Amino acid sequence: MYSDLPVDQLAGYLGSQTDPAGFDGFWEETLAEAQKHPLDVVLEPAASALGTLRVWDVTFNGYGGERIRAWLRVPAEASGPLPGVVQFVGYGGGRGDVHENLFWASAGFAHLHMDTRGQGAGWSRGATPDASGSAGPQGPGVMTRGVTDRHTYYYRRLFTDAVRAVEALQSLDLVDSSRCAAVGGSQGGAMALAAAALAPGLSAVAAYVPFLSDLPRAVQITDAYPYRELRDYLAVHRGQPEQVMQTLQYFDAVNFSRRARIPALFSVGLRDEVTPPSTVYAAYNNYAGPKELLVWPYNGHEGGGIEDEVAAAGFLRRVLAGN
Amino acid sequence: MYSDLPVDQLAGYLGSQTDPAGFDGFWEETLAEAQKHPLDVVLEPAASALGTLRVWDVTFNGYGGERIRAWLRVPAEASGPLPGVVQFVGYGGGRGDVHENLFWASAGFAHLHMDTRGQGAGWSRGATPDASGSAGPQGPGVMTRGVTDRHTYYYRRLFTDAVRAVEALQSLDLVDSSRCAAVGGSQGGAMALAAAALAPGLSAVAAYVPFLSDLPRAVQITDAYPYRELRDYLAVHRGQPEQVMQTLQYFDAVNFSRRARIPALFSVGLRDEVTPPSTVYAAYNNYAGPKELLVWPYNGHEGGGIEDEVAAAGFLRRVLAGN
Amino acid sequence: MYSDLPVDQLAGYLGSQTDPAGFDGFWEETLAEAQKHPLDVVLEPAASALGTLRVWDVTFNGYGGERIRAWLRVPAEASGPLPGVVQFVGYGGGRGDVHENLFWASAGFAHLHMDTRGQGAGWSRGATPDASGSAGPQGPGVMTRGVTDRHTYYYRRLFTDAVRAVEALQSLDLVDSSRCAAVGGSQGGAMALAAAALAPGLSAVAAYVPFLSDLPRAVQITDAYPYRELRDYLAVHRGQPEQVMQTLQYFDAVNFSRRARIPALFSVGLRDEVTPPSTVYAAYNNYAGPKELLVWPYNGHEGGGIEDEVAAAGFLRRVLAGN
Amino acid sequence: MYSDLPVDQLAGYLGSQTDPAGFDGFWEETLAEAQKHPLDVVLEPAASALGTLRVWDVTFNGYGGERIRAWLRVPAEASGPLPGVVQFVGYGGGRGDVHENLFWASAGFAHLHMDTRGQGAGWSRGATPDASGSAGPQGPGVMTRGVTDRHTYYYRRLFTDAVRAVEALQSLDLVDSSRCAAVGGSQGGAMALAAAALAPGLSAVAAYVPFLSDLPRAVQITDAYPYRELRDYLAVHRGQPEQVMQTLQYFDAVNFSRRARIPALFSVGLRDEVTPPSTVYAAYNNYAGPKELLVWPYNGHEGGGIEDEVAAAGFLRRVLAGN
Amino acid sequence: MYSDLPVDQLAGYLGSQTDPAGFDGFWEETLAEAQKHPLDVVLEPAASALGTLRVWDVTFNGYGGERIRAWLRVPAEASGPLPGVVQFVGYGGGRGDVHENLFWASAGFAHLHMDTRGQGAGWSRGATPDASGSAGPQGPGVMTRGVTDRHTYYYRRLFTDAVRAVEALQSLDLVDSSRCAAVGGSQGGAMALAAAALAPGLSAVAAYVPFLSDLPRAVQITDAYPYRELRDYLAVHRGQPEQVMQTLQYFDAVNFSRRARIPALFSVGLRDEVTPPSTVYAAYNNYAGPKELLVWPYNGHEGGGIEDEVAAAGFLRRVLAGN
Amino acid sequence: MYSDLPVDQLAGYLGSQTDPAGFDGFWEETLAEAQKHPLDVVLEPAASALGTLRVWDVTFNGYGGERIRAWLRVPAEASGPLPGVVQFVGYGGGRGDVHENLFWASAGFAHLHMDTRGQGAGWSRGATPDASGSAGPQGPGVMTRGVTDRHTYYYRRLFTDAVRAVEALQSLDLVDSSRCAAVGGSQGGAMALAAAALAPGLSAVAAYVPFLSDLPRAVQITDAYPYRELRDYLAVHRGQPEQVMQTLQYFDAVNFSRRARIPALFSVGLRDEVTPPSTVYAAYNNYAGPKELLVWPYNGHEGGGIEDEVAAAGFLRRVLAGN
Repeated sequence: MYSDLPVDQLAGYLGSQTDPAGFDGFWEETLAEAQKHPLDVVLEPAASALGTLRVWDVTFNGYGGERIRAWLRVPAEASGPLPGVVQFVGYGGGRGDVHENLFWASAGFAHLHMDTRGQGAGWSRGATPDASGSAGPQGPGVMTRGVTDRHTYYYRRLFTDAVRAVEALQSLDLVDSSRCAAVGGSQGGAMALAAAALAPGLSAVAAYVPFLSDLPRAVQITDAYPYRELRDYLAVHRGQPEQVMQTLQYFDAVNFSRRARIPALFSVGLRDEVTPPSTVYAAYNNYAGPKELLVWPYNGHEGGGIEDEVAAAGFLRRVLAGN
Repeated sequence: MYSDLPVDQLAGYLGSQTDPAGFDGFWEETLAEAQKHPLDVVLEPAASALGTLRVWDVTFNGYGGERIRAWLRVPAEASGPLPGVVQFVGYGGGRGDVHENLFWASAGFAHLHMDTRGQGAGWSRGATPDASGSAGPQGPGVMTRGVTDRHTYYYRRLFTDAVRAVEALQSLDLVDSSRCAAVGGSQGGAMALAAAALAPGLSAVAAYVPFLSDLPRAVQITDAYPYRELRDYLAVHRGQPEQVMQTLQYFDAVNFSRRARIPALFSVGLRDEVTPPSTVYAAYNNYAGPKELLVWPYNGHEGGGIEDEVAAAGFLRRVLAGN
Repeated sequence: MYSDLPVDQLAGYLGSQTDPAGFDGFWEETLAEAQKHPLDVVLEPAASALGTLRVWDVTFNGYGGERIRAWLRVPAEASGPLPGVVQFVGYGGGRGDVHENLFWASAGFAHLHMDTRGQGAGWSRGATPDASGSAGPQGPGVMTRGVTDRHTYYYRRLFTDAVRAVEALQSLDLVDSSRCAAVGGSQGGAMALAAAALAPGLSAVAAYVPFLSDLPRAVQITDAYPYRELRDYLAVHRGQPEQVMQTLQYFDAVNFSRRARIPALFSVGLRDEVTPPSTVYAAYNNYAGPKELLVWPYNGHEGGGIEDEVAAAGFLRRVLAGN
Repeated sequence: MYSDLPVDQLAGYLGSQTDPAGFDGFWEETLAEAQKHPLDVVLEPAASALGTLRVWDVTFNGYGGERIRAWLRVPAEASGPLPGVVQFVGYGGGRGDVHENLFWASAGFAHLHMDTRGQGAGWSRGATPDASGSAGPQGPGVMTRGVTDRHTYYYRRLFTDAVRAVEALQSLDLVDSSRCAAVGGSQGGAMALAAAALAPGLSAVAAYVPFLSDLPRAVQITDAYPYRELRDYLAVHRGQPEQVMQTLQYFDAVNFSRRARIPALFSVGLRDEVTPPSTVYAAYNNYAGPKELLVWPYNGHEGGGIEDEVAAAGFLRRVLAGN
Repeated sequence: MYSDLPVDQLAGYLGSQTDPAGFDGFWEETLAEAQKHPLDVVLEPAASALGTLRVWDVTFNGYGGERIRAWLRVPAEASGPLPGVVQFVGYGGGRGDVHENLFWASAGFAHLHMDTRGQGAGWSRGATPDASGSAGPQGPGVMTRGVTDRHTYYYRRLFTDAVRAVEALQSLDLVDSSRCAAVGGSQGGAMALAAAALAPGLSAVAAYVPFLSDLPRAVQITDAYPYRELRDYLAVHRGQPEQVMQTLQYFDAVNFSRRARIPALFSVGLRDEVTPPSTVYAAYNNYAGPKELLVWPYNGHEGGGIEDEVAAAGFLRRVLAGN
Repeated sequence: MYSDLPVDQLAGYLGSQTDPAGFDGFWEETLAEAQKHPLDVVLEPAASALGTLRVWDVTFNGYGGERIRAWLRVPAEASGPLPGVVQFVGYGGGRGDVHENLFWASAGFAHLHMDTRGQGAGWSRGATPDASGSAGPQGPGVMTRGVTDRHTYYYRRLFTDAVRAVEALQSLDLVDSSRCAAVGGSQGGAMALAAAALAPGLSAVAAYVPFLSDLPRAVQITDAYPYRELRDYLAVHRGQPEQVMQTLQYFDAVNFSRRARIPALFSVGLRDEVTPPSTVYAAYNNYAGPKELLVWPYNGHEGGGIEDEVAAAGFLRRVLAGN
């Protein structure tokens, strides 16, 4: 039975995540370190059965100068500068097959679909390793990889990759760097919000059912994975909750939302047991820029599905037209 | 644990389905009846966010002259006659959103995505009713709707719709009627095989993990739905097995395979518990035309996923080029 | 864990269902239309192994003049006019075997056990089709069959059948038409409440753990089928909630309860996850006639089981004695 | 997926249970001991809402002279000697409510429905304790109560109760002691087979989906409870398999079947995971008297349900008419 | 999702269990009756592979003078009087193997590990029967054995065994009877709390995630076994809730906590669905002696695991040093 | 239902794993590389509540010179050289708490309990990172970390750690290096078998229900994790089966068994769905040294539990006495 907050309390719910003192410094330092590596974007034409789109296999330097993969898809006929969208992937998946995810390019965007380091063996295929390894014991999945220290935490590397992907997109000739947006669902939504706060040149963001939001509450109320990974870990490492919770402050979508200023579209599924609605509202309600929210009352973690994407395309058309 | 036939017996397995005396007459009569209704294909331009493709909302007369919906997607720039592909949908789904399933048109085909009568509320959206109702008691789903008589069985109506969809595709100006194929997965695969046997002008077929195949065995070995619907029904209607099994003979993919002569591509997942591998092999091994089989040893009912589609596109390019 | 309303709030809970303007007109029109068909009750003696009871296979005209089946069971020795009880069946089942459900006739009632159109292949056998078919896409089961319009909704047909079954019972020589009641559990309880509001000559009603009650809340709080069918449908047809919810107003037991005036017995299981207790209380608390409630604190959807039936028999003896 | 023996091997399967040397002596001694207690059948009229039947609350001395409860139901009008049927109950249940199980008396039999010691809190209510307690550690349920020694095993007591119930039935004035039968499903079927072998005056037996049959195989092939209770016990008491298996020999329906000579009706569900079909066939194929088998190909442990009962009534009518 | 009381309400939650009039008299009488049997502690050296510990197989007279088994483990080199700890076992288990549970003796305690009558076939092995049998129908497990009367309830016997085990421990030469404590988790925790209230010479107690606490709430809020056994029973025996709830008052840890005066350590897992946190807090908050509570925010019914044991050893060292 | 090989075929089953050409060279090279790092064993006394045992927190250089943690436990009174046993841990766990796993030292062995790199957050706590990271995409868990190349595969690192742990044990003053054995269950059993083949000075091995054995069959027949990780991975990376299967040849317990010559004790649970019995028999039947097998017919993956350990202690006493 439904057991998150009553629907009428969601609209005002601000979440339980605090904003740690060193948040900005930590990310400045992290990005500065990454930017010591030249971006080094390389585009290889990708063979495909597609006629209406052209696709490239892209690599660029992410966190630690490690090579991150992505697909770039654009309309086959496109020449002039296009609005750009970088898409981030949900938990466990990768950038998938070259023939999948044709929507954004078919809709006229230069679509950079970033791969996820060390994932990509769950529901869609990836090709990018996470070379850094674990800094301590960890459970299955990446939620607890290096979680005892914000410097070693997996998501430090992944969010840095996301910021660099935005730079990579903006660096392309085909792309109008003043009209670039980040989109993604679940983990991809969290990454999009991180990019919204951290990537200077971004113009808009769409985050569907974002994950990694209001983590102190998330880890309490839901039994579902991947949030459950944290609980499983802390059930065994009983002495570490404080330490782990301190790390998580630096990666919570709520804290990125507090810092972002660009127009944003969110979506939430009121039956979502993976990223429970209150946690999504926490990110939305704290978002510091202009914002809209798609509420799907009968949906779970699938949210609006294709309808989120179509709404996002419309939203971006509107917002980016102003740039 | 794995409990279908050992892998080395699959290659020679011919299935347990018999070929009933009146099969051909039944289908001739059924199609003749349907063809009394003019096809009456209507194309309405569909609004979309897509730039590289054009989409129409199509309706035509299916079984009983009832209006069947479909999407037609073609490359935006296409003018001359294109190879055509009609796609049928898996159990429970419908033709989906206008922005989904962009692969075939992006790959250069005129892509008619037929809706499924009275389904379309499961994993993808539909818009076509099944006006005929049930001819007796039935369980949830459509597997037992009218199953006591081949004339009232749900799949009589649906397979007739499929044949008429092929006609509809071939009737289009943009389409080269001599280069048309049917594709589909699971229920859609069964429909594609039915069309391969029944629709005269079809040139090729691709059936991924086809459903409704070797039904006497299927209903015995798997506990999974939708085959389980038949078992549930017969567990309550204990006096009807013979009658029901007689009906099913007229709709078994094995019997369509025995009659088809056009080149065919199949796929099978060796871990498939929904359409167990032996049942797929039964259809494949009985297929009377040139044929190829993609074997996915570690996959379940998802089969090859996008890789089945890409392989099918390659297969169709090759086969249709000869026409 | 338990997550419906706290027990002390149930007694006062009035539900969330509104009473739509056209409710009475809709049902008057619906019944008037049905009554254009003569009832045409036909009784065929049913062969059975029973000695203490006589059984007939009954048919009569329900919604649309379609033939509805039922069993009529009476004490073998009965001659004079008997009190009559019409029983409606729970979701998925049918009237069952002639040798089942012997309680009511053994207890001295003329017992008309109405079959359920297009169900009867789940936990008990039926024999009545739902000839009208679907008016659009639908999920498995009947909860979403025609649900976008109150005129095409499945339950319009079924509730009309229920009213006509009362008429059929009252038309029998063996029956004292001034002492007739409707009983049923779950879906059967909803039908009994509909009959209590719509069938003029009924004298009492017993509704165990009634289904289809307080639907706006039911669809929110429980994950269990069959209420879940509505959520599954709306999760795919994201644009239809308002339309669907409007339809449901005309079929909600709360709205029938508001109109019924005859004595009623309800039961509720406080651990019921199929028809959660708050939804049953909503029907009970809105019931406009004299009423009693059996509360089973440790039971789920089975409610009081045979004890509900025995209590209902006692209740009917008391109430009908006054007629 | 289905993983018991292939259907064509079931007909010849004789099981894996051996016939221990002291079987007959053990049961002679057990029954002799029980018969030292006078049967002392007491009938108290039971209040009920039923008009066509009369019911008594019966007690008699079972194993150890402990008082065993039962319901006796007969047609209200019956006077002369009736054919008698004693019914035994499935695992976990008891004799139920006075208003349940009306079939046999309604069909003209004197119906003694025996309660099950120390069960009766699962799916139907009982009223009889198992005063003897456990002779060692045991798991939940009764399958391992006293299982290390045939003298202390729970089923020694229960099967003795069953034999005494037959005596109790035959002792009644209303009953024609030369036309008495035992019936039951699952555990009740095993008890009926035990009674068929051990109760001298019985004339026929009907055992639906009998439990406790071919125990060495049963405990190997199925994961379902209650057979699983034995496996759970032996997984912890790793040194006791031999001892436990020796005890079980004395309670296996296969060994009772080898000794029974009266006409018997069996039923089997080919999808039964609780009492897998091979174990039922083992009892049937070893049955030493005239026998018939109802095979339900699409049913699980529910077997033929009411159709088993109706078939049994017809079978008994035929068989007992000869007496 | 989490659905027990909000964490901030737990600290003040006093539970819903009332304190029945005859509680003290009932237990005085029960223990007096047991003490009519001499304790008769017998120690047999137990063969083992252990070098650092010596182990004896202990028996003593428990409830009804029935022989209860236990292991006694002490450091091999110990001679002088040791602090003693009696440990009680969780639901379904027994005293286990001689080579298990080496912590307490390795830490320098004389460790009496008491077996549990009639259990010991679940997750660990036992060797003690529950000779008294059931006083009525019961479900699987022991929660409903004799539950309709406090005199016949299973836990009357088990708690009496626990008190006598304390006496047995204190009677040993190797043990300093003024420094004895009781420990246990779950059911063992309930037993430890009962011993704390009932066994006069005990000096301290440690109860991890205690079971059988605040039973009126426990049976309402959780779906998990073994509390669920009570609900299953009452769902069938619908007329007995009052009677059963009266019995349970005499065995609720809340009522023992109200009477205990010795120092106590509790633990609670905030994600515990077996003994939900509110029920543990009810026992803790009512505890009448000096007390400490270990709160494990991310743990379920495993609580602190070994960390509970190590904390308890430290706690006992501190507390017993004062004696 | 049981669906591995029939029991009578297990005794002769040799498995499906082939022995790749470069196996010996690969491991020689791997170990040689590791041995370039000095072992550098460091012992820190570990604080504990234990009196009968002394414990040290041990670190040494494993694969890549990374620091591996372990506990060393010995009898408190021990001085002279003790027989040594190194224990490896099952999947997901770590070396646990200092107060756990007291059996081996209490039984007189010097017990080195090695931690598992990058695990230790599942069912028991660890403290050792896996610094090397992933060499490509991977699923949750470690089964697919670096699996596309034997040089990058996770188990190359872990098995090397195991060999170095043996060296570390043998290097200790308290240990008689001529009487050292390796033990472990599941993953720990696979590691013990690897050590038996690769660590020159080892004298005996005990492998309970060993994992990572007959991998080509394991990945086919069971649905259970962790073998399922491989299937999940290959279901997404459909092009990699050959490559992955080649890697796995170098880590299969069958191939280590073929090379080991020291006396070995195995155990197998015939109901084991995690490491199905046929896969364990494949390792056992190929084992090239003297060997014994404990068969637990009613156990799953828990095998003999403590009885495996006690049997192993007896086995080692016997075998090591000869050294």
